[in-house]
Amino acid sequence: MRIARFSVDGSVAFGVVEGSDGFDGAGAPRGEVTLDLIKGHPFAEFERSGRRLPLDKVRLLPPVLPNKVVAIGRNYAEHAAELGHPLSSPPEVPVTFFKPSTSVIGPGDPIAYPSFSDDLHHEAELAVVIGRLCREVPLDRARDVILGYTCANDVTARDVQRRENQWARAKGFDTSCPLGPWVETGLDPERIAEGIAIQCTVNGDQRQLGRTTDMVRSIPELIAHITEAMTLLPGDVVLTGTPAGVGPLHDGDEVAVTIEGIGTLANKVIKRG
Amino acid sequence: MRIARFSVDGSVAFGVVEGSDGFDGAGAPRGEVTLDLIKGHPFAEFERSGRRLPLDKVRLLPPVLPNKVVAIGRNYAEHAAELGHPLSSPPEVPVTFFKPSTSVIGPGDPIAYPSFSDDLHHEAELAVVIGRLCREVPLDRARDVILGYTCANDVTARDVQRRENQWARAKGFDTSCPLGPWVETGLDPERIAEGIAIQCTVNGDQRQLGRTTDMVRSIPELIAHITEAMTLLPGDVVLTGTPAGVGPLHDGDEVAVTIEGIGTLANKVIKRG
Repeated sequence: MRIARFSVDGSVAFGVVEGSDGFDGAGAPRGEVTLDLIKGHPFAEFERSGRRLPLDKVRLLPPVLPNKVVAIGRNYAEHAAELGHPLSSPPEVPVTFFKPSTSVIGPGDPIAYPSFSDDLHHEAELAVVIGRLCREVPLDRARDVILGYTCANDVTARDVQRRENQWARAKGFDTSCPLGPWVETGLDPERIAEGIAIQCTVNGDQRQLGRTTDMVRSIPELIAHITEAMTLLPGDVVLTGTPAGVGPLHDGDEVAVTIEGIGTLANKVIKRG
Repeated sequence: MRIARFSVDGSVAFGVVEGSDGFDGAGAPRGEVTLDLIKGHPFAEFERSGRRLPLDKVRLLPPVLPNKVVAIGRNYAEHAAELGHPLSSPPEVPVTFFKPSTSVIGPGDPIAYPSFSDDLHHEAELAVVIGRLCREVPLDRARDVILGYTCANDVTARDVQRRENQWARAKGFDTSCPLGPWVETGLDPERIAEGIAIQCTVNGDQRQLGRTTDMVRSIPELIAHITEAMTLLPGDVVLTGTPAGVGPLHDGDEVAVTIEGIGTLANKVIKRG
């Protein structure tokens, strides 16, 4: 099931996505897509109301409002190598950092090029949406704390990342965390032998393409590693790392993250106003 | 004015602290202290109700519930030197990192020694409580976005900090951010020529002592640096760095942060259960 969060007539609602059968190059779903409004909340018991809205009459919002986004660096060996880390030696422990709630934007929202960077990069990532409060989650229970998956772009000021010891500004600036278009709850990448594909395009040209089977650490390992230290809350998001092919974004670029079985998250880069 | 947040009879309230005239060694205020309950919210218009409760009949909570805590590393030269950084070369840009909301605890709450560390350290810090939503705050407007100040302990798993490239686990684990005992709104450390003293004791023995005048970057510079990149929200907290003298904490230790003109924040270290 795909659960979208959206605004319509000034109020915010959740709905179940019906009828999408793929996406065109710009990230728009093919065919007629409707949203069946949810009574209740996706993190608790809920029912479909049967009241339907066409997707093109609403504004999609970030599918969750995370309290925190916990992100993992260098989780695809070939991406680590392109940043100058030896291909043969992944980090001994996953590189773990935060993106704050103030960095989150939704599908179609603009990515504002930061005033203090000259080298903004896209990083397409599979995002795990946490469904329940959890701490010290063992590997074999990780599935129980996951509500579903969405697409993320871990937008990074690469020059700032290189010159600042900690990445709060380089990866935590406003608009640096596009999420969407919705949460897919019926997918388990860990149970698909060939994994799922993660793709990033800029103005329609493919820049990144990888498969979740290339992750250095699996999703359960990442959740165990994070929750060994800290509580995750419903709606918190875990970003699982980006495959090789990261590169620059410029004012006016259309960047799209497409993940197999989920959908496409598209955003435009604008100059900060 | 000192504004405390507390629970009494199962509900949460704010109150204005009256009658405190200093603290004994364990962080308890000397003399009879009462809380005048607030009608409204400290971030907006509010009135004192005149309904008073004795401090010892309530449980103090973290004085704010930050959406995020933005912390600054190596902002006192002698502390940077004790961690092995040259005394003569402070970082070119402030080291900026996050502590998540899930790390925040209040006065008297236990600090749980993390299972994945063998070298937990105290770091006494002056905490700035942000009073209004703000972005790109110029130096001369920093004062306008500050609600007040409180005490913080940037509790750090030093061994984890040394071996993990980013500090999300080392400085973001549950209970790693004690805040309190209340927000002092009448203090402006930048306007006090000799600054204010920041002290840390462990089991009554002094471990850290510094003055805000020793900061490498001033509070307005830190707020400008952070808000160049990201929006701060009412209740967000900025930690301004720790003076020299950091050192280990052990199971059973009582650690107390006392800041001149604010008060004392005391917490006990326990084994994670």
